[in-house]
Amino acid sequence: MSGRFTVTYRIATADSADARTRAEAIAREQTLEAPPEATTPAIEAALLGRVDALHRDGEAHVAQISYDPNSAGPDFAQFLNVMFGNSSLQRGLKVVGLDAGPIASLHAGPRFGIDGIRRLCGRPRGGMIAPVLKPMGLAPADLALIAGRCAAAGADIVKEDHGLADQPSAPYRARLPRIVEAVAEANARAGARTLYFATLAGTHEHLEDNIAFARQAGVDGLILMPGLTGFGLVARLAAEGALPVMTHPAFLGGWTAAPGSGIAHDVLFGTLMRLAGADISVFPNWGGRFGFTQGECLAIARACRDAAGAGRPMLPSPGGGMSVERAGEMASAYGEDVVYLLGGSLLAMRERIGDGIYRMREAIDAATGS
Amino acid sequence: MSGRFTVTYRIATADSADARTRAEAIAREQTLEAPPEATTPAIEAALLGRVDALHRDGEAHVAQISYDPNSAGPDFAQFLNVMFGNSSLQRGLKVVGLDAGPIASLHAGPRFGIDGIRRLCGRPRGGMIAPVLKPMGLAPADLALIAGRCAAAGADIVKEDHGLADQPSAPYRARLPRIVEAVAEANARAGARTLYFATLAGTHEHLEDNIAFARQAGVDGLILMPGLTGFGLVARLAAEGALPVMTHPAFLGGWTAAPGSGIAHDVLFGTLMRLAGADISVFPNWGGRFGFTQGECLAIARACRDAAGAGRPMLPSPGGGMSVERAGEMASAYGEDVVYLLGGSLLAMRERIGDGIYRMREAIDAATGS
Repeated sequence: MSGRFTVTYRIATADSADARTRAEAIAREQTLEAPPEATTPAIEAALLGRVDALHRDGEAHVAQISYDPNSAGPDFAQFLNVMFGNSSLQRGLKVVGLDAGPIASLHAGPRFGIDGIRRLCGRPRGGMIAPVLKPMGLAPADLALIAGRCAAAGADIVKEDHGLADQPSAPYRARLPRIVEAVAEANARAGARTLYFATLAGTHEHLEDNIAFARQAGVDGLILMPGLTGFGLVARLAAEGALPVMTHPAFLGGWTAAPGSGIAHDVLFGTLMRLAGADISVFPNWGGRFGFTQGECLAIARACRDAAGAGRPMLPSPGGGMSVERAGEMASAYGEDVVYLLGGSLLAMRERIGDGIYRMREAIDAATGS
Repeated sequence: MSGRFTVTYRIATADSADARTRAEAIAREQTLEAPPEATTPAIEAALLGRVDALHRDGEAHVAQISYDPNSAGPDFAQFLNVMFGNSSLQRGLKVVGLDAGPIASLHAGPRFGIDGIRRLCGRPRGGMIAPVLKPMGLAPADLALIAGRCAAAGADIVKEDHGLADQPSAPYRARLPRIVEAVAEANARAGARTLYFATLAGTHEHLEDNIAFARQAGVDGLILMPGLTGFGLVARLAAEGALPVMTHPAFLGGWTAAPGSGIAHDVLFGTLMRLAGADISVFPNWGGRFGFTQGECLAIARACRDAAGAGRPMLPSPGGGMSVERAGEMASAYGEDVVYLLGGSLLAMRERIGDGIYRMREAIDAATGS
C-alpha cells in the first residue's frame, strides 16, 4: 500500500524541545512501542511513526505525525489504536486533525450518504426531520402508535431513542416488527416513504442474530453507538452495505469533555464517523443540555459534508433538547443537508405530534428557502 | 429483579440549587430522556433514575443516583449507557463511584480471577511476571523465539502487545499457532506452565471466527481492548468461560484525561473491568510514560482485588515503561496479587531476556517476602 495517514496532535507544552521529545515519543508509542535496542533497523524504517511537522500554536505545539498503513492493517479498530490507542492515556494531548490517506480506500465509507438517504426517503431537497421514539418503558404497541403518527405527518426518519435496547418493557424482537408494520401502514395510506431506524441492541452473543433479525424484519436503517460497541461494527455494516447506519454519541463524551485532551469534536463526530461508514452522525446541538459550542457543531457538520473529505458526504444530525421553536435558527446555521432530531419536546405534544412535525417542516423550509 | 444500581457523580458546581437541578436532569437524561408530559406516571415511577443523596464536596457536589435494573436490561452495553451514555457528553461531570447491586448477578464476572490464573500458571504465591511480545513488524517466528525464551525463564504469562493485530508482518492466523508451539516446547523442556495470551484482532466480520481460532490454536487467554471493541465483548467471553480475559486500556484515555470529567480511574480500570468479567486489568503505572498518579494506580488495584467488590477478585496489571529496576518499588506498593508487565526495557536485553526475568522475580520476591 502506498502513502501514509497523518494524525495532527496538539501537545500542551510551550517549550519546543519538550514538544519535539513528546512528538517523537508519540510516534514510537503508537507503533513499535519499544526502544530502538528492542527493534531492528528494517522495522524502524518501515513502521515507526514519523514527525512530519511541528510548530508552536499559542501556549501549545501542534505535531503532524504520519503512519504507515501497514502499522494498522485492515482493521478499523487497529487504525484507531495507532491513531490514539495508548497515547490517549497521556495528559495534555489531543487529536485535532486526521488525514486518512490510504486508510480511506481500505474501508467502504458511507454506503448511502446524503444522496442515498435522500433517495430512500424521497426528499430530494430540504432538511430532513427525524422524531425520536421514546421513552423506555412504553410497550411495542405504544411506540408503534407514535411511529405511525410521525410517518403520517411526513417525518423523513422515525428513529428509536438510543436508550431503547432489549428491556423487558419492549424487547428488541417484539418491538421492531410492530414499528415496521405501523410505519408501513402509515406510508401506504399517505403515499409516503418515511424510514424507520432501529437501535441495534442485545448482548454481544446475540449481535449477529439481531442484525440479521432487523434486516429480515424490514427496518430501513440501524442506530449504532461506537462508544459502546466499537467503530469496527460501523465499518463492518458499511462494508456489507445492506442497511444505512446512523451513529449515536452515547458513551463517547470522555473524548470531548475537556478542551486540552481527547479528540476534537469535528474529527470524532465528523471525520471518524464518515471514515467508518456512518450515513448519519448524531451529536448534541449547541444550546441544549450539552456543552457543545456553535463553532464545534458547525465544524462537525463541515467534516460530515465537505466534498474534499474521505468517503461519500454524509448527514450531520444535531439533537439533544431541540424544539420546533429552535428549528429556524438551526436551519439557518446548518442548511438543508441535515437530519434534524426532535425528541422530548415533540413527544410532549402527544396526539398532536403531527402538528409539531408540520411546524418543524415549515420553519426549516422557510429558513433554507426550500 | 429487586434492588437498584447506584452511580456516584461529581458535579462541578458549588451552588447547591444548581447541583440539585443538574442531578435531577441526569436521573432523567440517563433513563426516560423525555419530560414528564411525554411519559406516563407508571413509567416515571418504575424507570426514572432517583437522586438518593446529594452533598457538597469542596467546590463541587457529589450525587448518588440509583437506577432500576430494568432500565438497562440484560446487556452490559446498555448498562453503561444508563450509567453514563448521554451525560458523559455534559461538561463538568464525572463518574466517581459505582455500586452495581443487582447488575452483578446478571453477568458472570471474572471466571478465573486471582485464584484461577494462579492455578493455571502454577504460581500459588508471589507476583506474576508478564513479558510483552513486540514490536509490530517482527515475523511470527521472531515473536515465537522471544516467547520461548520468556517461557524458558519462567515468565508466568507471555502476552502479546496490544498493537499486534492482523498486520501483514505477522497475521493473526499465522502468528498464534507459532507462539503456542514455542511456549509449549519451552514449557515441556522446563516442566513449567507459562501461559500465552494473544491479542484478539481482525475486522469485525472475522471476530467470531478469530475467537474460535484462538481457542482451537490453544492460546491460554485473550487480550481485549474495551475502548475499541466494547465492554460487551468482555462480558460475553466471560459468560462463555472458556478463556481467561486480559483487558488493555488502549483508546480509553479520554475517560481519565481530565480531572473534572470522565470516569474515575478505579471505577474504569477496576470496578467496571471486574464487573464485565476481566481476569486481569492492564493500566499504566505511575512514573512511566503516562500521567497516572500512585494514588490512582493503587485505587485501581484495590477495586480489582477488594473482597467486598462485585465478582471474583481479579488481578491488576500495571505496565507502561516499567523496568527491572523499578520492580522492587512496585512490588512493595502493590503486593503479590499482581501481573507485572515488562515490555520495551526487557526486550532490549534480547538474548539475555531470561536474565531480566530472573532479576525481576528476585526483586519482586524480595519486596513481597515470597
